[in-house]
Amino acid sequence: MMETQSPNKGTLNHKNMMQECIENCSRCHTVCLETYNYSLWLGGRYSESVHLRLLLDCAEICQTSANFMLRGSDLHRETCRACAVVCDNCAEDCERYTVSGTGEGAPMSKHSGPPQVSKENVDDQMKYCAEVCRECAKSCHAMAEMPLQM
Amino acid sequence: MMETQSPNKGTLNHKNMMQECIENCSRCHTVCLETYNYSLWLGGRYSESVHLRLLLDCAEICQTSANFMLRGSDLHRETCRACAVVCDNCAEDCERYTVSGTGEGAPMSKHSGPPQVSKENVDDQMKYCAEVCRECAKSCHAMAEMPLQM
Amino acid sequence: MMETQSPNKGTLNHKNMMQECIENCSRCHTVCLETYNYSLWLGGRYSESVHLRLLLDCAEICQTSANFMLRGSDLHRETCRACAVVCDNCAEDCERYTVSGTGEGAPMSKHSGPPQVSKENVDDQMKYCAEVCRECAKSCHAMAEMPLQM
Amino acid sequence: MMETQSPNKGTLNHKNMMQECIENCSRCHTVCLETYNYSLWLGGRYSESVHLRLLLDCAEICQTSANFMLRGSDLHRETCRACAVVCDNCAEDCERYTVSGTGEGAPMSKHSGPPQVSKENVDDQMKYCAEVCRECAKSCHAMAEMPLQM
Repeated sequence: MMETQSPNKGTLNHKNMMQECIENCSRCHTVCLETYNYSLWLGGRYSESVHLRLLLDCAEICQTSANFMLRGSDLHRETCRACAVVCDNCAEDCERYTVSGTGEGAPMSKHSGPPQVSKENVDDQMKYCAEVCRECAKSCHAMAEMPLQM
Repeated sequence: MMETQSPNKGTLNHKNMMQECIENCSRCHTVCLETYNYSLWLGGRYSESVHLRLLLDCAEICQTSANFMLRGSDLHRETCRACAVVCDNCAEDCERYTVSGTGEGAPMSKHSGPPQVSKENVDDQMKYCAEVCRECAKSCHAMAEMPLQM
Repeated sequence: MMETQSPNKGTLNHKNMMQECIENCSRCHTVCLETYNYSLWLGGRYSESVHLRLLLDCAEICQTSANFMLRGSDLHRETCRACAVVCDNCAEDCERYTVSGTGEGAPMSKHSGPPQVSKENVDDQMKYCAEVCRECAKSCHAMAEMPLQM
Repeated sequence: MMETQSPNKGTLNHKNMMQECIENCSRCHTVCLETYNYSLWLGGRYSESVHLRLLLDCAEICQTSANFMLRGSDLHRETCRACAVVCDNCAEDCERYTVSGTGEGAPMSKHSGPPQVSKENVDDQMKYCAEVCRECAKSCHAMAEMPLQM
């Protein structure tokens, strides 16, 4: 297959990176809204305006950034750049709620809804959200810095 | 775990159905934007305004509908109802481009970017999009008809 | 000019109604997000999850509904129908915060940011939001019931 | 009233600038979708994929950028920065369709639907869209460069 026979421009490596970035943005969007819902339900310090706002910000820019890439827009680097910054801010905020900040903890290999409620589990949700945000930030940062593939 | 200890209301079955519907909406949103991009690139009868518009309509209401469910909104039945109708319309339109309309064809078990370009493959993309839309419509219709679980 | 020479189908009356509905949806989206921000800042009973969620729901479906109309989609009646229900629910919820429920109060002819903070003014913001939601609901309901103009 | 008594941080001047930027983003979003609809209807060189894609990109990032500001997000500078670049790109593209590129032309003081169809009027719609995009870009650029007001 010739490259010119596909609407997705660029080398195979570039395409794989973009596909991965779209998936990271999509997962981050989902997890941020789940965490928003969970935080609102928990209340107390979990429903602080800064926390809730960052989760909504992150969900929305992830959605927009994914949409730019899905539409094959040349300007996806602009939204990816903004997305990387917002994701890092959201991750940092979620880490405030975990014991050790950036703690290791058992990896939540497959996310299937918010964990059961306990002090430890609440931390798990925030830690999981932080991890997903960091991964998305990394991937968006890479896309933002990559030269356009024609 | 008691049901009341989770932000997700309803029975286990209801939760699974909603989780599945969120995933269907999310996949349908993605595939519609990919198909939009692909159709625009193909041009000709694939870039007819009716076709392009339906793909955008479907992508957007799927996104909105998924967001309502992710936020745990009691009003998700309203967006699911609208989503079911839009998905069915989009599926019907995509089926216009396939040889047999609702044809069977080899299932595209794992979607990884638009298929290579040939008459047959173009049909595959439209057929795949139609299938994903039909599945989403079915799932949204079920959610719209289900009584609220408290 | 013949009607067929414009991308906006339908009679002049239908066009005016749609234009008005787009403006109502757009204003309602804006006021709901302003009220969300304001409620989160006020805290206490204003940041109850039901209230915050409805404001986000209403903002999002108004946006989606306006986008369908702006794109000239034949399916705008589906999103308008959902929008009307969500707006009415959001209005009802905002009215809970006002003294008399549906109280009259001085009309806020020109909205320029949240009012100064006092018990009375807080009520004004919620009352204003309720009024804007009711107006949008009415207009969306009319669009949803109107036959398609070809 | 003390500044701290309002959810909108910053000096009066900063508030006015943000209010103006929200309005510019909102108008730009609307005009880009109207122009998308119009271009799709015109067909031919007006429905080139680059043109259609930029109009959708611009509409979406304007919406996201306005939403960040309406939610009072500290991170609005990131979305405003992306928005400024996308708006400038969209303006440049629309100017390709006008006779003189950046031509003056009669200002369309109040936009009320796409103009009547003629070579000159089509140019008017593209010119109007370009003007609205330029204004939005300018305003977003100013917001992106402004230090956060606490």
